Amino acid sequence: MPSIPAMPNSSMPTIVPLPSEPAPQPTEPAGSTRLLLVDCPDGPGLVHLITGVLAHHGANIVINHEYVDRHAVRFFMRTEFSGGDGLDEAVERLRAALPQPANVRLGRSGAYRLAVLATREHHCLAELLVRNLYGELGASIEAVISNHPSLETLTTRFGVPFQAVPHDGMTREAHDEAVLDALEAFAPDYIVLAKYMRVLGPAFVKRYEGRILNIHHSFLPAFVGANPYRQAFERGVKIIGATAHFVTEGLDAGPIVAQAVVPVDHNDGPADMARAGRDVEKIVLAKALRLVCEDRVFLSGSRAIVFD
Amino acid sequence: MPSIPAMPNSSMPTIVPLPSEPAPQPTEPAGSTRLLLVDCPDGPGLVHLITGVLAHHGANIVINHEYVDRHAVRFFMRTEFSGGDGLDEAVERLRAALPQPANVRLGRSGAYRLAVLATREHHCLAELLVRNLYGELGASIEAVISNHPSLETLTTRFGVPFQAVPHDGMTREAHDEAVLDALEAFAPDYIVLAKYMRVLGPAFVKRYEGRILNIHHSFLPAFVGANPYRQAFERGVKIIGATAHFVTEGLDAGPIVAQAVVPVDHNDGPADMARAGRDVEKIVLAKALRLVCEDRVFLSGSRAIVFD
Amino acid sequence: MPSIPAMPNSSMPTIVPLPSEPAPQPTEPAGSTRLLLVDCPDGPGLVHLITGVLAHHGANIVINHEYVDRHAVRFFMRTEFSGGDGLDEAVERLRAALPQPANVRLGRSGAYRLAVLATREHHCLAELLVRNLYGELGASIEAVISNHPSLETLTTRFGVPFQAVPHDGMTREAHDEAVLDALEAFAPDYIVLAKYMRVLGPAFVKRYEGRILNIHHSFLPAFVGANPYRQAFERGVKIIGATAHFVTEGLDAGPIVAQAVVPVDHNDGPADMARAGRDVEKIVLAKALRLVCEDRVFLSGSRAIVFD
Amino acid sequence: MPSIPAMPNSSMPTIVPLPSEPAPQPTEPAGSTRLLLVDCPDGPGLVHLITGVLAHHGANIVINHEYVDRHAVRFFMRTEFSGGDGLDEAVERLRAALPQPANVRLGRSGAYRLAVLATREHHCLAELLVRNLYGELGASIEAVISNHPSLETLTTRFGVPFQAVPHDGMTREAHDEAVLDALEAFAPDYIVLAKYMRVLGPAFVKRYEGRILNIHHSFLPAFVGANPYRQAFERGVKIIGATAHFVTEGLDAGPIVAQAVVPVDHNDGPADMARAGRDVEKIVLAKALRLVCEDRVFLSGSRAIVFD
Repeated sequence: MPSIPAMPNSSMPTIVPLPSEPAPQPTEPAGSTRLLLVDCPDGPGLVHLITGVLAHHGANIVINHEYVDRHAVRFFMRTEFSGGDGLDEAVERLRAALPQPANVRLGRSGAYRLAVLATREHHCLAELLVRNLYGELGASIEAVISNHPSLETLTTRFGVPFQAVPHDGMTREAHDEAVLDALEAFAPDYIVLAKYMRVLGPAFVKRYEGRILNIHHSFLPAFVGANPYRQAFERGVKIIGATAHFVTEGLDAGPIVAQAVVPVDHNDGPADMARAGRDVEKIVLAKALRLVCEDRVFLSGSRAIVFD
Repeated sequence: MPSIPAMPNSSMPTIVPLPSEPAPQPTEPAGSTRLLLVDCPDGPGLVHLITGVLAHHGANIVINHEYVDRHAVRFFMRTEFSGGDGLDEAVERLRAALPQPANVRLGRSGAYRLAVLATREHHCLAELLVRNLYGELGASIEAVISNHPSLETLTTRFGVPFQAVPHDGMTREAHDEAVLDALEAFAPDYIVLAKYMRVLGPAFVKRYEGRILNIHHSFLPAFVGANPYRQAFERGVKIIGATAHFVTEGLDAGPIVAQAVVPVDHNDGPADMARAGRDVEKIVLAKALRLVCEDRVFLSGSRAIVFD
Repeated sequence: MPSIPAMPNSSMPTIVPLPSEPAPQPTEPAGSTRLLLVDCPDGPGLVHLITGVLAHHGANIVINHEYVDRHAVRFFMRTEFSGGDGLDEAVERLRAALPQPANVRLGRSGAYRLAVLATREHHCLAELLVRNLYGELGASIEAVISNHPSLETLTTRFGVPFQAVPHDGMTREAHDEAVLDALEAFAPDYIVLAKYMRVLGPAFVKRYEGRILNIHHSFLPAFVGANPYRQAFERGVKIIGATAHFVTEGLDAGPIVAQAVVPVDHNDGPADMARAGRDVEKIVLAKALRLVCEDRVFLSGSRAIVFD
Repeated sequence: MPSIPAMPNSSMPTIVPLPSEPAPQPTEPAGSTRLLLVDCPDGPGLVHLITGVLAHHGANIVINHEYVDRHAVRFFMRTEFSGGDGLDEAVERLRAALPQPANVRLGRSGAYRLAVLATREHHCLAELLVRNLYGELGASIEAVISNHPSLETLTTRFGVPFQAVPHDGMTREAHDEAVLDALEAFAPDYIVLAKYMRVLGPAFVKRYEGRILNIHHSFLPAFVGANPYRQAFERGVKIIGATAHFVTEGLDAGPIVAQAVVPVDHNDGPADMARAGRDVEKIVLAKALRLVCEDRVFLSGSRAIVFD
């Protein structure tokens, strides 16, 4: 193993996004807007009610996104607005006025804290670390935790704390517990599984319910089990893809946030398919993470509503 | 089973969509919803105002789409709602209350009348005729008009009136005029240029302003002039595409409604590229036409707002 | 103008491709080239041997495609050439010289006879009928056979014989047998399942082994069983797709020839997904059929080698 | 060689590709194969001749790719083979036997030396640096040279030499000359323009003719001049893209190696389009660079032949 550049374990100053060109580009309009996020049982007059409360507080709506899940009979709304006074009071007012159970909150885009879990593959982690370095995530990566030490050098090159939590000789439950302990110090809002090759147990999933994002190498047709790219090759697929989804019980069954694909052909062996797959995986994971951190994603049962 | 429409030159009965499986599928929810379409200068409280008027008339909003063009300072809204009484009065009420100049109307999805202009290429026309036959357009094709007779057989197989308006020996203005005369009888809401190989003059465009949809074989990078696929081949492009857009003055400069692309490689000669291009062209044109006929498209200067 | 083929139930004359613009476009170079198709156990010197025999017979190679399946240790080659004398003798010479078992034949692109099986959905059938009408398939549709009468009108509009073989009250085996009987008269080289909603039994598949092409609505992740688009909706997928494949035992497990996808989002209900899926299905099926009829597809176990 | 800027606090050792999982994955089959690359005027019997010489030298062909540019009447061939003795002699033998002018060489995949030119945007450079760190380029980045100092920190984090060559107060010719001088020490085989915002003059282009790869933000339709993403927004395009191409005289007119696109809609402002564009740019540039460094790209006039 090469000597690790001096990064690790030195006291790291707070990371400052590097100057670059173009400067980190906010979604237009500029950051002076705020977000109101609402979901509640559907019913008549909800948009009128919500926009009325916002108007009462002097807020000007910039853009609304709404959706009604007709099966769940549930209403979802993301409102970007400028101006407004007494917004916490507005939130309380809405909580009282909307059908129950209702979730009402102001968006925190830009302020989310992330922890990344990884194992040995570097491509997704590196993608996130570069974006974090330049302030492009709408969130900050507070730590990388791995069951394997090999990504420490990469992580610390980017000034992000790395913690190895080896799983050797541990039960899954005990290892999950150790990772949860390690996470505690970083108080993450979201956990990102960047090719973390362990299946999380129910206790872990419950602890961060609706807050764990995973990237899965899924195909047309989907392959499960070991060596998915070899299976894809043997089946002769012409397209491979990747899926970013929230983790529920079971690693690969939660609500899908983003998917993308890339064409392959018979000349592509399993290694070529894996390489093409890695490019898709990292872009899809980064996109899904951006959507989540910009408060664009709501969960409705097994589906993710994505206001893109 | 309906009687089979007689072939060419006989008097055509009204076309009856053929029974098929699956039946023509409406966008969910079912047809009992209506559409309200609004655009006006932007300002505070518009959503609250509009939803208030709808609520006053007993309408329940199913889904809203809104957009503000910040450069034009103009607000666009498409509201799908169920129920409601006195809707014409609601429209009048809104017209009076909104900032001026405002456009307010109820959608007519499903009731639009189309005329198709074509020349000699059949792929786009055939695509539209099949969809028309099965009631999938959200509109009806009332006539096909061409400057060349070769598509008559195809058109009349589908029971649609065909009219040839040859251009030989005519000035562009005179030919445009003759086509306008032929169109008059069919009272079309929209004109679809399905590979119509003539450039429309300003008088024609003005007569159907904002109501002419064209399909253009555009590339990466875009090619103009004669033999675009040969140019694309000689430039060695790896992707070709198509663009459906509204016609303004100049055939290929109006607001873009839909675009799509397909990969090609060095093995593809100009004829292969043209063949691949045709598949993209017809799907993109049909998609754009559906979006327009479902009242999902607003024009804002050089841009099309598409609530898909 | 050509005489219009008589409508249903009359005796059909040979279909004549309609004049159109652009004329049916052959893959460049023009039709004066021929194809040599070889597959045999891999070994040293095969390309040298084959090109030597072609040169001996005065043939000039225009383009070669080669592939070695390293797992099956099998060599595949498609050679397009111009000129050459005594080609049947060249084929015999190669058969004698190549490692056994070897398949050697001259391509028949343009001369293949097709039979289409369909049920009630029209979109794939209409796509194939339009392309057949204009001579774009590199093959001719000799008949459409269906277990349901509803597509007869569409089929006969295009001058293609239609035969209904109802399955009511029949076992699968008996119905398969009846369809096989009906097919016999048309001597098809390939069978195309254009949304044929019956599972073919082993006897049928064996009768046309490696010669049955199917279109399957497959998704990311793949869904099986009833109502696939409803399942896709409930799973909240962001991409849907389609797969054209050869039929082996079991309807959806054979070698994949072509796949494509289209993005969807949470606004798309099951009916929207089905509509988007239909556009992909028909284009993918038509593409796969073209590849097969241009002699570009070889089968190697569970994989299709596609020289595109 | 320039001194390595002090990274965060430590002196940087020579960079050694980091251990990771999966290990850098060669295209199958493994590295024991070699490449023969030939282009020459087209004529009869070329494949037979070339495969004969290889066979004479005991080489077993693994895979051939061939192409004939019919307009230029030129033949291109890439042969991957195993075994073989006296390969330099085989190359000489082929040079003597082929029609002139012929280029014949053995591939150097894995051994190419790269220099990257950048300005202030980090996304393409970071993508290449990560791949370089893990040995995924089939080449090594020897240096990054920029007309601006801001990317020094990023570059040196990855242990790659960085050299600033400011252009202030210099003519384009003088600055080009200074960059050429700086490049000399690194003896690059290829120059990669990773968002280098300067137009190279004819002398520079001539010095590295056919060896400069650029990434261009091209659109549907293509936009030129300043602020391309703003132009794209104002035109209301639904797709944006990127093009990797060789540089000839004029920055954006050389042979295209790879292109890709991403959909956008009316909700995407210029900054959103730029962000989406950056993801496409970096993946397309990295793909094109891999194709070049795997000896898969031949130039034929204004076109790139890509044996992928």
